[in-house]
Amino acid sequence: MGLPLREELRGIEPYGAPQLDLPVQLNVNENPYAPSEAVVADVAQAVAEATRRLNRYPDREFVELRAGLAAYLGRDVGGGVAPEQVWAANGSNEVMLHLLQAFGGPGRTALSFAPTYSMYPEYARDTNTRWVVGHRAEDFAIDVDQARALIAQERPSVVLLPSPNNPTGTALPPEHVAALCAATAEAGGVLVVDEAYAEFRRAGTPSALEQLPDNPNLVVTRTMSKAFALAGARLGYLAASTEVCDALRVVRLPYHLSAVTQAVALAALRHTDELLGNVDTLRHERDRTVDWLREQGLTVADSDANFALFGTFADRRAIWDGLVARGVLIRETGPEGWLRVSIGTPDEMAAFRAALLEVLP
Amino acid sequence: MGLPLREELRGIEPYGAPQLDLPVQLNVNENPYAPSEAVVADVAQAVAEATRRLNRYPDREFVELRAGLAAYLGRDVGGGVAPEQVWAANGSNEVMLHLLQAFGGPGRTALSFAPTYSMYPEYARDTNTRWVVGHRAEDFAIDVDQARALIAQERPSVVLLPSPNNPTGTALPPEHVAALCAATAEAGGVLVVDEAYAEFRRAGTPSALEQLPDNPNLVVTRTMSKAFALAGARLGYLAASTEVCDALRVVRLPYHLSAVTQAVALAALRHTDELLGNVDTLRHERDRTVDWLREQGLTVADSDANFALFGTFADRRAIWDGLVARGVLIRETGPEGWLRVSIGTPDEMAAFRAALLEVLP
Repeated sequence: MGLPLREELRGIEPYGAPQLDLPVQLNVNENPYAPSEAVVADVAQAVAEATRRLNRYPDREFVELRAGLAAYLGRDVGGGVAPEQVWAANGSNEVMLHLLQAFGGPGRTALSFAPTYSMYPEYARDTNTRWVVGHRAEDFAIDVDQARALIAQERPSVVLLPSPNNPTGTALPPEHVAALCAATAEAGGVLVVDEAYAEFRRAGTPSALEQLPDNPNLVVTRTMSKAFALAGARLGYLAASTEVCDALRVVRLPYHLSAVTQAVALAALRHTDELLGNVDTLRHERDRTVDWLREQGLTVADSDANFALFGTFADRRAIWDGLVARGVLIRETGPEGWLRVSIGTPDEMAAFRAALLEVLP
Repeated sequence: MGLPLREELRGIEPYGAPQLDLPVQLNVNENPYAPSEAVVADVAQAVAEATRRLNRYPDREFVELRAGLAAYLGRDVGGGVAPEQVWAANGSNEVMLHLLQAFGGPGRTALSFAPTYSMYPEYARDTNTRWVVGHRAEDFAIDVDQARALIAQERPSVVLLPSPNNPTGTALPPEHVAALCAATAEAGGVLVVDEAYAEFRRAGTPSALEQLPDNPNLVVTRTMSKAFALAGARLGYLAASTEVCDALRVVRLPYHLSAVTQAVALAALRHTDELLGNVDTLRHERDRTVDWLREQGLTVADSDANFALFGTFADRRAIWDGLVARGVLIRETGPEGWLRVSIGTPDEMAAFRAALLEVLP
């Protein structure tokens, strides 16, 4: 007999970037700096302690972790963030799933503006939420008037806006956040500003966190995968009103965050300053990379993230293939003709530059 | 403005057993034996190694863990289990979510037989799957003819059957599994036998794993929370046809299992024999507990699990309260008049018996 697989899932390939074992990995926006031995030792000790009680279920409310994340986010917000305003899950993709389970679902619409993060339509599909996508301007900014009109027309219960945007690196100006938050509220929805890459933003670019006190329908998501160099630990989180967090408690699976995950994240938070030091190094390297690509006559989107989108190429696949042949893996993503490179170490970026010079037409 | 919370979630309290800080915790079927220092050391070392690469995303396909779990399950199946027949997620509740996302959802029906695990309707609600519940016989067994008729009538795409059942401890005889698997196949559905407590089954009770080769629509779920004493690590898994596993790969969030979770589970699997030794101790203590409760004139459901359902009480809440007042936390669950006690250490069960003798009418 055939399995009762849902119609919309038939023939679909599982999501995921191509994984090739190449020496220079600049394809999935990982942080190239592995945790230091000080972090490793602290994590191992914290996990050993947690393991001694691992026969018991973890703290369902992850109270200590919520407090730790709130304290960290408080650096970006005048009045601070309360632990009850923080939610966390296994990666920010599970955070998004919880948001769409609570506020999306059958009969509801989620909306974003392309080009944007390619997982968003998958979250919508997995929660049976209708997916609508508007379009960004040629410089990848949001045209606020058009966006407002689309929101008024489609009445989404969830608007997803990454800032900085993936794969373009474009940050949202604060007045756009305010305007879109108001438009979304008028439509009865929540605005989710996905700040996965926020720590890499350029000086003078504020976080949407600053607007939380004024906007009960604003949600700002973050992750420990990027700035905290913990992609392997799977810890995404958000700040919002306590009402939003309480709604997510209803749809989360009980004990969704393991005691080990909680211990690892808390250990990493104790090393925040060290980890943010590497972020500064990466921001510097990002700016150098953007400048260099422009010097080669390429078009590069302004980037507030740890990657750069550059182009345009008549045959981007040929460029990508040429880099692969030289041991450098970047990502074929974004609008036709563009390529995205993650920011690695100075040595990795030197290898990328050398390889690109060889394959440029 | 109000948040666009889904109608069916309004006023709902988050799922979870009451958490009281009492000396004797016999309420959530945890394994009372904490990991040994040998396990703690092995876990800490494995996590330290994983942390050195934690800036990178984890193995999306968790290849090594699938092989480890397949080897473990192979102990229960003549022909063994292939790694491609294994799926895992953050707790067996995420395994169930994946199953219902792939095979349930809007326009589909999931079905079980009460009294049974109280999370099942929540999984259905979270995936917008219609939920239908039949009823067990007075001895908590499934009436196969009635069940077949209900399946033919409701045509569920997913049938959920725990064996041993929670909260009754009742195992499914193999001929019932075969009959219900056939009836579910005829209705075009998959039969999920939830074997969270399988390692505690009495001698002579086979696992449904034995019937996998004959039934492409059979799914057998397991967990490391109980026999492996890893409730805090959140690792659930299943064995099924490779077609089922491939379907789940489409709905899983990418990188859903952290590198740390994979490392912890693999470390625990290296200590399988030690951990199963404690299971034998618990089975013995379970049988003693059932016998003792019956000697007190109580009715006790036959149990193949690490808990016992006993009763019946005109006022079960009074019994539960009396135990709480004496420092013993059990669970008020199951049909009216019954209570469930998890099996703890000999000392914990002595405390339970002493307290119960004081509060019995």
